[in-house]
Amino acid sequence: MNEIKLFCPATIANVSCGFDVLGLCLESTGDEMLIRKVSTPGVRITKIIGQQLPMETEKNVAGVAALAMLKDLDIDFGFEIEINKKIKPGSGIGSSAASAAGAVYGINQILGAPFNQTQLVEFAIQGEALASGTAHADNVAPALLGGFTLVKGYEPLEVLKLNTPSELYATVIHPQIEVKTADARSVLKQSIPLKKAIVQWGNLAGLVSALYSEDYDLLSRCLHDEIIEPMRSPLIPGFYKVKQAVKEAGALGSGISGSGPSIFALSKGKDIAQEVAKVMGNIYKDFGVDYDLHISSINTQGVKEL
Amino acid sequence: MNEIKLFCPATIANVSCGFDVLGLCLESTGDEMLIRKVSTPGVRITKIIGQQLPMETEKNVAGVAALAMLKDLDIDFGFEIEINKKIKPGSGIGSSAASAAGAVYGINQILGAPFNQTQLVEFAIQGEALASGTAHADNVAPALLGGFTLVKGYEPLEVLKLNTPSELYATVIHPQIEVKTADARSVLKQSIPLKKAIVQWGNLAGLVSALYSEDYDLLSRCLHDEIIEPMRSPLIPGFYKVKQAVKEAGALGSGISGSGPSIFALSKGKDIAQEVAKVMGNIYKDFGVDYDLHISSINTQGVKEL
Repeated sequence: MNEIKLFCPATIANVSCGFDVLGLCLESTGDEMLIRKVSTPGVRITKIIGQQLPMETEKNVAGVAALAMLKDLDIDFGFEIEINKKIKPGSGIGSSAASAAGAVYGINQILGAPFNQTQLVEFAIQGEALASGTAHADNVAPALLGGFTLVKGYEPLEVLKLNTPSELYATVIHPQIEVKTADARSVLKQSIPLKKAIVQWGNLAGLVSALYSEDYDLLSRCLHDEIIEPMRSPLIPGFYKVKQAVKEAGALGSGISGSGPSIFALSKGKDIAQEVAKVMGNIYKDFGVDYDLHISSINTQGVKEL
Repeated sequence: MNEIKLFCPATIANVSCGFDVLGLCLESTGDEMLIRKVSTPGVRITKIIGQQLPMETEKNVAGVAALAMLKDLDIDFGFEIEINKKIKPGSGIGSSAASAAGAVYGINQILGAPFNQTQLVEFAIQGEALASGTAHADNVAPALLGGFTLVKGYEPLEVLKLNTPSELYATVIHPQIEVKTADARSVLKQSIPLKKAIVQWGNLAGLVSALYSEDYDLLSRCLHDEIIEPMRSPLIPGFYKVKQAVKEAGALGSGISGSGPSIFALSKGKDIAQEVAKVMGNIYKDFGVDYDLHISSINTQGVKEL
């Protein structure tokens, strides 16, 4: 194989009670990437369409992730990467993770798959570190593994694929407000009350149980974030209005996607997910804020060949 | 039915990373309880053997739990309770929970089961509150539901039964050291670092996943307590020595049972659980500290009729 064309999915990190550990992968929103093996060693970003992003390999997340992967390999050829960037950077649905995941997945395929999924996540988070300042895996893991994923821990890095209930749909609204990941991080308190932590981990444990038992009602009761959402939601005008409206429209729950400003909702079935999209859109329409809407089933495969 | 004889199981609360939310139920250790319907209204504790405990209904956990249950019922008869107390109070394996759970389960059966499991847990934790000062459900829930249980939350109270891997065995050593629940609570810091909380909830989410996927290796990797164990372990001499030794003996992991002083270990298979018991015993033998040992499969039923 000398060339591979990929779909690099958008992802939702945190998923309410799973701050820094949970993520899920979207089916209908993502970038396209073309990776070509070439005789010249090294990695070059040869084309980016859709967004203004750095073409220099060392300043591009796909480039950095690819370089991390190739660092210890003794090969006399290289790779060219073309990106059709459909996920807006800064939207909170794993734009940089999609690029990082795509680059390492694609090159690994061309090389004959010498690396396992955990290693791919390790490489990809080095791209993530360039974009957000921290090497977090909660978008990269679902982008590579698909479905619901858990970053069980970092020392050592361990990522798990959880079960995904089959009728689950995600709706995501991206209001055109800028929330920088660094700002979203700076509002976080570094110390939290034990009592709130217990509520949070009770909800997270319940949510994992709900994924395995495919209990949508339980899932709904667990989609609460005691800790991060109250700190970050002031950065997103209209957040609680959306939360209230989507619940009334039948969503199981909602929260901040990653570090925002996108807001996600989960629903049982496509019809509700579409209704949820409508009410989300109406709120920002009333505010006079532009937005993008995504309605998607859960992509249980992750990055895939097109 | 006018009389019921029950096995009221010992339980392990917290289970390392699940402080205040996780619990599991033992098969081979527990009290026996006899509950008799009598014509005189009210609840009387008529006999306690095995331990010195209050006979006055309002000062006995079984009595308080029973009274909580009967409070709003319009009945013209009452109950007598006899307890053969085999679980030592203050051992950290749910002695008071066993009594509270037995009382409400048994009376509910005699009444024709008007209350559901969550209601029974609600009543039983009022007995627990008498014993420990807090109405916690992490022993009562596994005693009533059996298996691994999750206290998903208290507002409203929601208890879930998780899956239990079939080959799992628990070993518990109760060194004869006194650790009062109130003291074990007072060493807890009320504020914790967000970073440690994230590690903890990553492990807990992984543990729940391991229970459903019956992945013993993953279970082992998740049996860590970043937060509570470092605060409480100084109250239990020999704790880290036991932890090290049981790991070497093949245990999946170990931790403080409830608020101690008992130490539990989980193992795959009875043989390892027995070997673990041996190394646990040897350590306290060397210390010259008396101990009780329990080796048990997981009781997936909870309180049961004898």
